[in-house]
Amino acid sequence: MSSTPAGRLNINNVNPHVREAKYAVRGELAVKSEEYRAKLARGDTDLPFTQVISANIGNPQQLDQKPITFFRQVLSLLENPLLLQHEDVLLNQLGYKPDVIERAKWLLSKAGSVGAYSASNGVPAIRQSIADFLERRDGFPANEADIYLSGGASSGVNTLLHIICEGPKTGVLVPIPQYPLYTAALALLNATCVPYYLDESQNWGTDVSAIKKACADAKTQGVDVRAIVIINPGNPTGASLSEADIRSVLDFAREEKLVVMADEVYQTNVFVGKFVSFKKVLRSLQKENPGKYDAVELASLQSVSKGMVGECGHRGGYFELVGFDPKVQAEIYKFVSITLCAPVIGQCLVELMVNPPKPGDPSYELYNKEYNGIFNNLKERAYALWRAFEKMEGVECGKPQGSMYLFPTVKIPAKAIEAAKAEGREPDEFYCLRLLEATGVCLVAGSGFGQKEGTLHFRTTFLAPGTEWVGSIVKFHEDFMNKYR
Amino acid sequence: MSSTPAGRLNINNVNPHVREAKYAVRGELAVKSEEYRAKLARGDTDLPFTQVISANIGNPQQLDQKPITFFRQVLSLLENPLLLQHEDVLLNQLGYKPDVIERAKWLLSKAGSVGAYSASNGVPAIRQSIADFLERRDGFPANEADIYLSGGASSGVNTLLHIICEGPKTGVLVPIPQYPLYTAALALLNATCVPYYLDESQNWGTDVSAIKKACADAKTQGVDVRAIVIINPGNPTGASLSEADIRSVLDFAREEKLVVMADEVYQTNVFVGKFVSFKKVLRSLQKENPGKYDAVELASLQSVSKGMVGECGHRGGYFELVGFDPKVQAEIYKFVSITLCAPVIGQCLVELMVNPPKPGDPSYELYNKEYNGIFNNLKERAYALWRAFEKMEGVECGKPQGSMYLFPTVKIPAKAIEAAKAEGREPDEFYCLRLLEATGVCLVAGSGFGQKEGTLHFRTTFLAPGTEWVGSIVKFHEDFMNKYR
Repeated sequence: MSSTPAGRLNINNVNPHVREAKYAVRGELAVKSEEYRAKLARGDTDLPFTQVISANIGNPQQLDQKPITFFRQVLSLLENPLLLQHEDVLLNQLGYKPDVIERAKWLLSKAGSVGAYSASNGVPAIRQSIADFLERRDGFPANEADIYLSGGASSGVNTLLHIICEGPKTGVLVPIPQYPLYTAALALLNATCVPYYLDESQNWGTDVSAIKKACADAKTQGVDVRAIVIINPGNPTGASLSEADIRSVLDFAREEKLVVMADEVYQTNVFVGKFVSFKKVLRSLQKENPGKYDAVELASLQSVSKGMVGECGHRGGYFELVGFDPKVQAEIYKFVSITLCAPVIGQCLVELMVNPPKPGDPSYELYNKEYNGIFNNLKERAYALWRAFEKMEGVECGKPQGSMYLFPTVKIPAKAIEAAKAEGREPDEFYCLRLLEATGVCLVAGSGFGQKEGTLHFRTTFLAPGTEWVGSIVKFHEDFMNKYR
Repeated sequence: MSSTPAGRLNINNVNPHVREAKYAVRGELAVKSEEYRAKLARGDTDLPFTQVISANIGNPQQLDQKPITFFRQVLSLLENPLLLQHEDVLLNQLGYKPDVIERAKWLLSKAGSVGAYSASNGVPAIRQSIADFLERRDGFPANEADIYLSGGASSGVNTLLHIICEGPKTGVLVPIPQYPLYTAALALLNATCVPYYLDESQNWGTDVSAIKKACADAKTQGVDVRAIVIINPGNPTGASLSEADIRSVLDFAREEKLVVMADEVYQTNVFVGKFVSFKKVLRSLQKENPGKYDAVELASLQSVSKGMVGECGHRGGYFELVGFDPKVQAEIYKFVSITLCAPVIGQCLVELMVNPPKPGDPSYELYNKEYNGIFNNLKERAYALWRAFEKMEGVECGKPQGSMYLFPTVKIPAKAIEAAKAEGREPDEFYCLRLLEATGVCLVAGSGFGQKEGTLHFRTTFLAPGTEWVGSIVKFHEDFMNKYR
């Protein structure tokens, strides 16, 4: 018994919505893996492995992905503008190209100091640069006033759900499996998550009939379904929606007056198929059918954390709004202003991401080489991991499609399921915990993302270098199956 | 009439708690001032002023405060670690000192890449460095496990209030006038703000009897008062609490079992009196009275945005917890993990702030000169502004005490109050709006911070350089008084 007298707060009287929120990506397993990492760093030798592999989270630069040189050279000048007094040294001795210096000067002229708060929605010139990018990408105009810089996409999701959710009856359609930020944010807001299931048999495709059914069922229970989340390409599935599927989703959103939240942070992590933005398809529909789609509200999100940029630690991102009422936008502006502004150096990184060196620019050759190197590396690792899963008993995994993850289904023997129950755990959690203890490899159980009743999965990134950790998963799996068979 | 068909969201069905939240620091006046700034940038000449002075927000580097060289040199190396391959160039041609290089290497060895997510509560070595600083500052031990890095102090306040607020009946004592983040965050959480008034006649001192009365009144109305916010030094008032006052507050918190939230972001911006931390006083009380104060829960917040650092755009900060239940801390950890982590470059800046060059270090001389230069500069500007206010009819202002603000009381003629009413505005809002239109100087009306019924104030930073803008306020005030007398 503890001798410390009780304070005011305890687990039973804190905010119940915080208590209810779950976030497995950084949950018990991740915490345990950090403890192992600290143990190894202290020189402890009583663990059956010598390194911890954090395959639980898409964090490329924690593993061995190098940042893109152009980006970081510009950022170094933004952090220390005094270096710009030594252009000759930068150019002749430190390998900086003229376009690096030019871009840094331009960003400083627009942001002032990166140590100053920007406008609440971001530096105006950076918003304009994003609008220009969106116009190039989609072939339709974009307006800087509809763009909001955010601290990673997570903070954008938090903002949008804060506005959308009126009360406990507000329902938001969320794909299952999903990135658990959505369910966690809805739990915090005490709103209703309306799950719709992706179709594993169709390589995790988005099935509009499943969405319609989920929506209709929720409505009969009195839920005010008013938004739909689409993660495209999918997390944890990697699946990209075809243009036809996006049209179906937008059509359904129009019929049901659903706000569409398109999480497009993996838009450049595509191995199979092609990324098509929701914005482009919506504008196409509006052009083809004058008037018919004008009321559709779309918010699309992007981030510097994913893609070949992989700059998670910089917490940069943005969202673009289409079709939102100006008075609602004013509320969004006020909401973001309460937390002042997104990190300004992260805003600058967003600008670099959307406006990288172009062919002919002095930094282009290196940029292009680094960018393609990262892309090909990720693809190779994805396939190597997939081939390993193909050989594992009871494991099934579709070919890698995109994002940074594989999400295999795993069949676990009945004895293992019983053993899990005895520990009060989901069977896939039990599996992942034993894997961590045996190998130091940290995954996330499928139950952390949601899955159809009776199926089990795990999510792993394919970011870690080398093949040793893959071999250790294969070996563990064999032992596990033999033990519980 | 607009021809756009209505979407799903409108001002009447978005989250009502967002609608209710107010944040005057970046409200209508600030938005209008940005419009003026854009007009001037476009070359428009129809405004009666040639520059906009943003005295509405403590944003030193937007005005002319230069960042501290040591900080930014280290950050430039963290952003581009390839520069560390050229130590000779850094040392001999670019003015970097050996301790800059050493610190950058150390931070990189601890954080890995600044482009990688850190642990949810921050880089462990940075938490340890903060704990070491707190121990040096207070003379009592601090534990890195009780420290949470945050995106500025604002994000820390958001986290803490999220945990504390169980429902609409949860009450939090907030000083009036206050930094409106507190009332805004409580509105978003649909909790109850319990205002207590600071004593203007005692230079905005904290009067424990006023706190007691506010708390007792709220309890009789069924409010579950469970926390008290103290801003020390005060914002917008600048007042520092004496150790005796802090003891009284902690004593009351002990009696009433209130969680103490000590917003100490202005701890180095002190001209009058001395900053004493709540942590130090709490630990002293615990030492003097074994057992008696053990259950007191304290959260204290700090930021890189204020002080002589002034790095608002980097969104760095931290909070330390004392006396919190481990299970409550686990909920806090989960909450911060949903947004992944604070910006890592901002975390590194926190480390530099708490562990700056020491006497004898190669960078110390310049650091010390810059630090003192900023301090003295702020003090001079504060006094210059205060002397101007002293001469203005109907304006009363205590001597500058600290923080970055003056908060004078202003007596406005009855005719002006009527004119304000006719516009549906608070009289001080009306005054500030007319000032902005006439001079380009953007202030925040006292009503944005809260004030005693029947009194009127405005808040201005004393960050802007030069005296011209001060003169323009004096001139405007004279005209305003003459017009409405």
